Amino acid sequence: MSGPADQALKQRASKVIPGGMYGHQSVSFLPPSAPQFFKRAEGAYLWDHDDKRYIDFMSAYGPNLFGYCHAQIDAAYTQQMQSIDVATGPTALMVDLAEAYADLVTHCDWSIFCKNGTDATSIALMIARAHRNKKKILMATGAYHGAAPWCTPMPAGTVADDRKHFIYYQYNDASSLRAAAEDAGEDLAGIFASPFKHDVLIDQELPNLEYAKAARQICDDKEAVLIIDDVRAGFRMERDCSWHSLGVEPDLSSWGKAIANGHPISCLMGSERTKKAASDIYTTGSFWFAGAAMAAALKTLEIIKTSDYIEHTVTLGTILRDGLNDIASKHSLNISQTGPVQMPLIMFNDDAGNRDMMVGTGFADGMIKGGAYFHHFHNMFINAAMTQDDITQTLELAQKVISSITTPQKA
Amino acid sequence: MSGPADQALKQRASKVIPGGMYGHQSVSFLPPSAPQFFKRAEGAYLWDHDDKRYIDFMSAYGPNLFGYCHAQIDAAYTQQMQSIDVATGPTALMVDLAEAYADLVTHCDWSIFCKNGTDATSIALMIARAHRNKKKILMATGAYHGAAPWCTPMPAGTVADDRKHFIYYQYNDASSLRAAAEDAGEDLAGIFASPFKHDVLIDQELPNLEYAKAARQICDDKEAVLIIDDVRAGFRMERDCSWHSLGVEPDLSSWGKAIANGHPISCLMGSERTKKAASDIYTTGSFWFAGAAMAAALKTLEIIKTSDYIEHTVTLGTILRDGLNDIASKHSLNISQTGPVQMPLIMFNDDAGNRDMMVGTGFADGMIKGGAYFHHFHNMFINAAMTQDDITQTLELAQKVISSITTPQKA
Repeated sequence: MSGPADQALKQRASKVIPGGMYGHQSVSFLPPSAPQFFKRAEGAYLWDHDDKRYIDFMSAYGPNLFGYCHAQIDAAYTQQMQSIDVATGPTALMVDLAEAYADLVTHCDWSIFCKNGTDATSIALMIARAHRNKKKILMATGAYHGAAPWCTPMPAGTVADDRKHFIYYQYNDASSLRAAAEDAGEDLAGIFASPFKHDVLIDQELPNLEYAKAARQICDDKEAVLIIDDVRAGFRMERDCSWHSLGVEPDLSSWGKAIANGHPISCLMGSERTKKAASDIYTTGSFWFAGAAMAAALKTLEIIKTSDYIEHTVTLGTILRDGLNDIASKHSLNISQTGPVQMPLIMFNDDAGNRDMMVGTGFADGMIKGGAYFHHFHNMFINAAMTQDDITQTLELAQKVISSITTPQKA
Repeated sequence: MSGPADQALKQRASKVIPGGMYGHQSVSFLPPSAPQFFKRAEGAYLWDHDDKRYIDFMSAYGPNLFGYCHAQIDAAYTQQMQSIDVATGPTALMVDLAEAYADLVTHCDWSIFCKNGTDATSIALMIARAHRNKKKILMATGAYHGAAPWCTPMPAGTVADDRKHFIYYQYNDASSLRAAAEDAGEDLAGIFASPFKHDVLIDQELPNLEYAKAARQICDDKEAVLIIDDVRAGFRMERDCSWHSLGVEPDLSSWGKAIANGHPISCLMGSERTKKAASDIYTTGSFWFAGAAMAAALKTLEIIKTSDYIEHTVTLGTILRDGLNDIASKHSLNISQTGPVQMPLIMFNDDAGNRDMMVGTGFADGMIKGGAYFHHFHNMFINAAMTQDDITQTLELAQKVISSITTPQKA
């Protein structure tokens, strides 16, 4: 169980927040030791209200790329806030940032800035449909593209008509994708693809080239729009759109989370081909033109371009993955570590088919108790503020936790 | 035409931003003198990139309630950012803020925090449908409730199915509302109502009591959910939900824009009756749990509760309205000033039916040229940082502008 201060806050929250908490930050499906509230964040660490410190492997579910309370990025935010943030029009930073993305991201010729990842995917949906005035959208079964009525993973409060023109395919299965495109006939507006398969509760999968190329080819053949939803993985795998090294460029890519290291901004980038449709749709938000988050995004981009942060998180992720494999192997525990090493998902094969996920829950519970905030069914995120020492401590802890969950307790 | 620095920025923007700018902050429908970009904001004033100063009557289209770069509110934001902002879980401020709203706003028992006004209205839509698992939603013709596929005022990129279960009624017309409810039959999920009619391009209207009471009664009779969309007007008319003084309380109210004086946060408030449905739906966003905007919202709320800001903006709005009426009358100009004085809309009856709105555009163009940022078809917002001196200067300017557009020029 989380500490008494956290329990007291949860008690208060249950009165004034539906379900005590909502959305992806609710701990209702997490192990009992997971605190619901945090009081301080710095670099790779979080502190809860009982003053317990955690090495945070969730990185705010993605936004924390370079460390919490990053001095330079936060200074950029604050400094801009002191001259102009939200106003009756945008600042010049909006042009600077759109130019900077067009320079860096291969397929990007223009940007639309917004606040939520769901804004960027919703705008992508609208542009795909406006492009040739078609309706059908292909999406991979189980893929997460946001939490608006058209895409929320839980149907409560939505109507079937919200998803009437969506056709589902199996990620990484080119023939399933082709069959879905066939179903769409002449009405195919676009294809949503995650940069890799990062659904919750199941092993992650990197994209295979046949699938990625099929997605591009179908969109070319049918005048449809290929959308990479890079909200979660953007700038964590590449200093470009995440399919760039595969040699496949989308027409649209949605970004969010880490692009300003946690400051609130998301973005839809697009190629010249879709610019007309992008100017035909109407979408907006009260805070979308605010300058401070754009200043933070520009500073974040500077660090993305000039530091070895990806390589650093890959190094740490590799040490973590190898170390956990060693420990599991020594304890004859069958674990499955999938996805890019810097965005790890750790599942326990003994949990397969068991809804209680007893092993995974027990492991995550032990890790959190020991001061490493782990998740047992959502991919985690290594951030660049982490050190080898953090990983060493985490592996030492994992050794103890795995021993405790694999060694039968004395009666 | 705006100045050369603004023109240069617009030129750059046209290459990397669809349409040169999108959404409500695009100047494409504004008079030629309106600058697209701003460089500095302070109190009631804005400066463009040609160093021209404006008394800003748009207040960022609503968010600026107490003045740009408000020292105390911005300090609350920055201070919170230095300890924890976005993280792997929320901060205790989320509970503090939800409790504070439940204390102040009569119908409010709980809150869900989000980023865009559209988030709050979209969540309201989902909760209304989840409440008794019904589908039909009544909305006033021409009312703005956001810019997602289900509510954007322009159809490009949407499909008819996005709006399949919406039934439209005439604002302020109880019999039209009752007829729409009749159409919905047993499937009525909810009614959206703006706090007053604040559609673009037409006169504003305060709500009549018969209409407001009918909305409440229909929802009570049919187990439907009454939603006040207070995103634009919240805390500008009342220190409570905007229908409170009418004696009509909604089940849900959506808020945004001004609640943190421009810092990015929006909110859906609800009554106990809808709390179960609110906990059944799934919605979330990467930055919804961030602490800094909540700290700013708490500081803003403190000023809302302890200052005479509403009364001040009503005083200034009254002086402006009376003054403009006097000037127009002297020049035999037929003007229509509607809505709450602190959220004025100024229309020219000679423009009625004329799509070019020649008089209104000319008036706004002259005002902007003279340093008062006016809008000719969207309601404006008086903010509490404005002074009587600002209004006096604005009226002196209006006198000159109206003279110039009503006196025939010598050949």
